[in-house]
Order: sequence, then C-alpha cells, then structure tokens
Amino acid sequence: MPKLILVRHGQSEWNEKNLFTGWVDVKLSAKGEQEAKRAGELLKEKNVHPDILFTSKLSRAINTANIALAQTDRLWIPVKRSWRLNERHYGALQGKDKAATLAKYGEEKFTTWRRSFDVPPPPIEADSEFSQAGDARYGDVDPNVLPQTESLALVIDRMLPYWQDEIAAELLSGKTVMIAAHGNSLRALVKYLDGISDADIAKLNIPTGIPLVYELDNQLKPTKPSYYLDPEAAAAGAAAVANQGKK
Amino acid sequence: MPKLILVRHGQSEWNEKNLFTGWVDVKLSAKGEQEAKRAGELLKEKNVHPDILFTSKLSRAINTANIALAQTDRLWIPVKRSWRLNERHYGALQGKDKAATLAKYGEEKFTTWRRSFDVPPPPIEADSEFSQAGDARYGDVDPNVLPQTESLALVIDRMLPYWQDEIAAELLSGKTVMIAAHGNSLRALVKYLDGISDADIAKLNIPTGIPLVYELDNQLKPTKPSYYLDPEAAAAGAAAVANQGKK
Repeated sequence: MPKLILVRHGQSEWNEKNLFTGWVDVKLSAKGEQEAKRAGELLKEKNVHPDILFTSKLSRAINTANIALAQTDRLWIPVKRSWRLNERHYGALQGKDKAATLAKYGEEKFTTWRRSFDVPPPPIEADSEFSQAGDARYGDVDPNVLPQTESLALVIDRMLPYWQDEIAAELLSGKTVMIAAHGNSLRALVKYLDGISDADIAKLNIPTGIPLVYELDNQLKPTKPSYYLDPEAAAAGAAAVANQGKK
Repeated sequence: MPKLILVRHGQSEWNEKNLFTGWVDVKLSAKGEQEAKRAGELLKEKNVHPDILFTSKLSRAINTANIALAQTDRLWIPVKRSWRLNERHYGALQGKDKAATLAKYGEEKFTTWRRSFDVPPPPIEADSEFSQAGDARYGDVDPNVLPQTESLALVIDRMLPYWQDEIAAELLSGKTVMIAAHGNSLRALVKYLDGISDADIAKLNIPTGIPLVYELDNQLKPTKPSYYLDPEAAAAGAAAVANQGKK
C-alpha cells in the first residue's frame, strides 16, 4: 500500500524573526535544525522508512530532509526537487515583518493575504532585493510560469501537476514517499487529498517538523484519516502556527 | 565547456580509527564535517558552481556534498546517487584495523590488497556484520552484480558504465558536474580521464575534502591538467593518505 509522509520544514531564521518569507531562501534556525532531527527520530522510532524523497527548491526544506534522513540512516534514498513544491510566493510582502504588516494594513487585509483562498498579495517588483528574478535555481523552468505573487489557489494549480505525474508515479509503484516542503504547498496537497473546501482550508495549520502520514489505496485515496507521528506535539505546533503574527 | 568537480569525502569515523571501511556506511567525523565545509567554501571563493550532483550510496559522501553545497548556497541542484560510485568493496578486510592487518599479514600482502591493480582481498562472508547482503539501499540493483570484494580494476569496470551514460550526458549538455565519492572510485575515474597506467595508478593519492577540477572538451578529454582548488592543502593531504596504515 502506498504511504506518503509530509514534513513541513523546521523553524527558519525568518520564522523566528516573524518575517514573510515565501520564496526567499532563508536558512533553518538552530531550533529548526532540532525540529528536523526530531522528525528523523520519529521516522526511526515508528519504523516509517521513506523510499524516495521529494523536496522544494528551497534550502530550509532540503536541509530539513537531509537532517531527518541522516537521523534515520536513509540519506541514500533517491531525491527529486521541484519549484512546484516551493512555499507560496508572498509577492510584495516577502521580507516584511508580519506584526508590522498587520499594524500597517489592519486585520482584514492581513488576514485576507494570509488566509484567503484566492486573493494574492500585490506582486513583487523584479528589482526588489527579495525577488527571485534571474535566480539560477529556476533557470530550467519556463520563465513565464514563475510567479511574482500567489494565493493558495495558485499554489494548488502549480503544485498538482507535479503530484499527478512525478509523485503519484512513485506511490503507484508501491514506494513510501516523503515530501519535505512548506506550510502552504503542503496545505495545498492536504486540501486535495482530504477534499477540504476552499473555506475550511483557511483553518488548517500544519505544524513544523512532525511527519504527517497518509496511507493510500491504489487510487491514491486515503484509506483512513492521516496521522502525525507525534500527535500531541502536532496539536501544540498547529496552535502556535495559527497564532503567528498575533504578537 | 563541460567542467567536472571531484570531491572525496572528508574524514570518517573509521578513517580516524584506521579501519578498512569499503561499503560499511560509517559517518563523517567532526573533522570530516569541517573538511566538507571547507570544500564548500572553496567552491564559493573560486566561483565554481555545480549544476548537478552525483553521489555514491554511502552517507559519508552524501553528507560531504550536503555540507559543501549548503556552504555555497546550492543545496537546490538536482542529485543522483549510484552504488557504482561507492568506495571499493574491501571484502573480508572491512571492519579490520589497518595497522593490525599490516602486522598480521606483512607488508607484501597488505600493500597488494591496498594498492595492487587487480588483486582483490578475500571476499566477505554474507553473515559478517560488515556485509551489505540484504541492505535495502541496494534493493533496486541486480543482486548478482553486487560485489563481495573488489580490486581497483573491478571498481573501474563497474564505475565506467555510469560515467559513460549518466554523468557524461550531463557534461555533454554543458553542465558543471560535481561528484562526491571515495578514494578508490575517484582514483578509477582519474585513471580513465588522465590515461594513467595500471602500474602508475598505485602512486596516485587523492586528498579528502579538496575539490579537484577537470575542464573538458566536447569529447570529454581534459583541455589542461586538472587542478585542486587549494593546491597546497591537496599536496599535504595526499601525503597523509599515502602514509595511512604506516603508523
């Protein structure tokens, strides 16, 4: 039976500073590295053995996977990376302080940009220091498809083709697949797998560094509810994410 | 012009203990992690930017690459792994102390097993704690091709097909290719690229953690002598490798 393991990267240097990150390639914080290590310990303790890894093109997700796999002695599994698993592009908000953005624009706009299904923030300017224009890591992608801002709806649109072809192929061949990615690219996938409505997905928060496991049938439908490998820590972590920007 | 970067993994826990390692999946030592970091700093300082990474299936090579690429902000490049880039399988010597092996069998046998071109050590028993029989990481390979011992000649035989197809294809498409591997799999490749004789390859030692660069033409022939990104450190490192087991 195909098994899918979702891991949201551990805390980054900008999560810690409460900045909108999106596609900016910030590194894990020391706490984030610890979370990644814990993710690997959980995989080992619970005997969940990924056969293949998918990551975004962003260092914080890649490093989370590398640290976790080192912990569970599976650094050797094959790995594929795609921009389609990247975090939501936060447009002009990238690099901005979350609390300051809340104070400046007010609760309504702030919540719309963070949690509305299909309203993207204003696009980033190509000459912004936080733009990815010209970044070599996207040099093998049609430049016209690379976003300057995204809503969750747009993340789903660009993530699903990768799921349907690349990731599904591995699951359908019976492999246990691990995806190391981001809050919003994983919410997009969970929405699809669990059939969550456009309205309800706003309330879903995925905690960092705790593997979330789906057991799937041969139609890639969940055979039972997905579960975290550390349910108590996951509940606490999701609550912490929900309160981000509220300080 | 295709560019090739060879990186031998940094010191492992067993290099440190002076044990024959081969295919046993030992980890980097703290010194080895520092060497890997230095390799990444050299890539960054000298503006050598790998577009794609090849590694063996062994953690010490994979981790060396992960640490080096994190250092030079290129964790995001595609990566492929193959057992064909593994260290030479050391047969029944795996897990044995080098100095004790020298004392027990004498200089001639010791040097033959370490440095002869085509005399492999005795094969490892499948029930040895240092055998890789049944290791999941080789579960996708024809079991009949997996070695129980290897000479350098046998390493060349199993490494070259991977070079000729997978690695050559990336170089011929103009990419800068990084290979993170092992003393003997890299000696095998250097022998092939530089046309070194079976006799002379015994004297070639590749230091750990210092990128070795080949600039190639479109026939994949070197256009000039290969060079280390830190030549002084490389000369000292090669001398240290040559003296291994002599203590």
